[in-house]
Amino acid sequence: MQRFVNKPDYIVEDMLQGFAKAYPYIEIIKENDHVVKNVNAPIADKVGLVSGGGSGHEPAFLGYVGKNMLDAVAVGEVFSSPPAQAFYDAFMAVDSGKGVACLFGNYAGDNMNVKMAIQMAEDEGVEVKCVIANDDISSAPKDQKEKRHGIAGGVFMWKVAGARAAQGASLDEVIHSAQKAVNNTRSICVGLAPCTIPAVGSPNFTIEEGKMEFGIGHHGEPGMHIEDLPTAEVIAEKMTTAIIEDLELANNDEVALIVSGLGATPVMELYVLYDGIEKVLSEKGVHVYRPYIGDYVTSLDMNGAALTIMKVDDELKELLDYPAESPGISK
Amino acid sequence: MQRFVNKPDYIVEDMLQGFAKAYPYIEIIKENDHVVKNVNAPIADKVGLVSGGGSGHEPAFLGYVGKNMLDAVAVGEVFSSPPAQAFYDAFMAVDSGKGVACLFGNYAGDNMNVKMAIQMAEDEGVEVKCVIANDDISSAPKDQKEKRHGIAGGVFMWKVAGARAAQGASLDEVIHSAQKAVNNTRSICVGLAPCTIPAVGSPNFTIEEGKMEFGIGHHGEPGMHIEDLPTAEVIAEKMTTAIIEDLELANNDEVALIVSGLGATPVMELYVLYDGIEKVLSEKGVHVYRPYIGDYVTSLDMNGAALTIMKVDDELKELLDYPAESPGISK
Repeated sequence: MQRFVNKPDYIVEDMLQGFAKAYPYIEIIKENDHVVKNVNAPIADKVGLVSGGGSGHEPAFLGYVGKNMLDAVAVGEVFSSPPAQAFYDAFMAVDSGKGVACLFGNYAGDNMNVKMAIQMAEDEGVEVKCVIANDDISSAPKDQKEKRHGIAGGVFMWKVAGARAAQGASLDEVIHSAQKAVNNTRSICVGLAPCTIPAVGSPNFTIEEGKMEFGIGHHGEPGMHIEDLPTAEVIAEKMTTAIIEDLELANNDEVALIVSGLGATPVMELYVLYDGIEKVLSEKGVHVYRPYIGDYVTSLDMNGAALTIMKVDDELKELLDYPAESPGISK
Repeated sequence: MQRFVNKPDYIVEDMLQGFAKAYPYIEIIKENDHVVKNVNAPIADKVGLVSGGGSGHEPAFLGYVGKNMLDAVAVGEVFSSPPAQAFYDAFMAVDSGKGVACLFGNYAGDNMNVKMAIQMAEDEGVEVKCVIANDDISSAPKDQKEKRHGIAGGVFMWKVAGARAAQGASLDEVIHSAQKAVNNTRSICVGLAPCTIPAVGSPNFTIEEGKMEFGIGHHGEPGMHIEDLPTAEVIAEKMTTAIIEDLELANNDEVALIVSGLGATPVMELYVLYDGIEKVLSEKGVHVYRPYIGDYVTSLDMNGAALTIMKVDDELKELLDYPAESPGISK
């Protein structure tokens, strides 16, 4: 295992220390060393925004804490949900009295722990409402959307909700905009080589040389199928077409999109892929309002890419364009 | 070779297309499809800033074209210098009559081609002056600094010079500030796994499992030595100490630094590494004014990291803090 790591069991703690040192506007809270928050939170008269999830997806989730972005994040161990207590501590750390929006991805562990944390917060008189991202079209068929996992689509949900909250919106209004972002967003991943959980030391799945796993999950969950590794153009065409169909994109639609590396993907190749993606969209008459290309949501050292597309209207464009500052995204 | 690529021989062209599509403020110039420039260049009454170099280091070099950053970049094939014509075309595309600063890294091919291009530009009455980054301390001993290669230190040179030029400085003033950034900057890399040039298809060097190449070059040039792969803390200590000594950092010094992945390095691990780097600096009494952590200058799909440290004073801090917008760095 060729990695920058001290004790593999403590990689999350070490990463958190480095992260908190790197950004003076982000701190680990006193009450819980697995919760980071904006040093200014709670912000008076603003809905608090919280997310959380397993580690290994950096810069998600903690890298989206910042100005007009998330106020706090509950940080789980590698690929595993933060406990309910961490979500609860995050809620309590950011509530200004205007309520908290918990915006996370659809996984069984996170669902359960958030539910418990909300109960705990309500017992203390803090109102929390949720939006659950379910953008990964490969994780369940379209008629079972509630089973679909959340992946890089969360980034758009956070950006949109962060802007809305900063504008002084109520909890219901923030929830409405975040849900709109989720409703308009779909993602798909391809894997070219597996990832290794540091504490395990070897990959828990394999992708053969010359093959690609189409629709792989963000933790290496089995994809829709395995096939011979085609050219970047063909990969781009398959990924983009799958999303166009699921999202029912049509001529003259506008979209924002993310092409994210999965951790070990060279920057150069993300642009090669984007060239192909843009061609397919353009042929369909779909205009790219803004592309984000880089490491936005990763999977440890997986080699692969995620494509996330959000259909935008004037409201979503305005919220995307709203000023923001966080390690993962700035505007 | 598990890569997102069409025809390996055309990966640079495909990347360039994707890149130009992604950023509306950057365009490929009509005269040369291997030169990108800020759409607003030449900018009236501003010194033009040009860089260039081989591809495979994305977001360098082209990703540092932008507002108050570079005005144009000559884009070479993978790991090879752009021809003199590309540098010349870049100079001519950005000169507003106030002269051009060519800010590049120290490699034989680039030196030769830039020299020829300057001659060509002077024949047309365009004044060009150079600063050559030589931050890689592993590439030659301290008493042969002129032999040292330029690596991620270029990013600081471009940011500082970009701000200075935007403030309306003369060519000599821009050159002075860029040279000051270079004089104050040192870098060192470690490699954990090699990279593969797409058109070749297999790595042209190896790093054995369980080993690390300390001081590896940005194209896989042999490092200072090979050793057993230690913990992240020990790697951080070795890298940081090497720079502290070469740069003669002392108690109460302030620095800006970059921890850059080399292409296949997970984001999480860069923060683990930064935690160790900051500890060593802090013990030495050196304060980190601003860290930049992510993919700033890469080497295709190499697994490894580069540490770049610039000693800063009030002038350099002001120039680092000056507003800027480019794909690679924003402020």
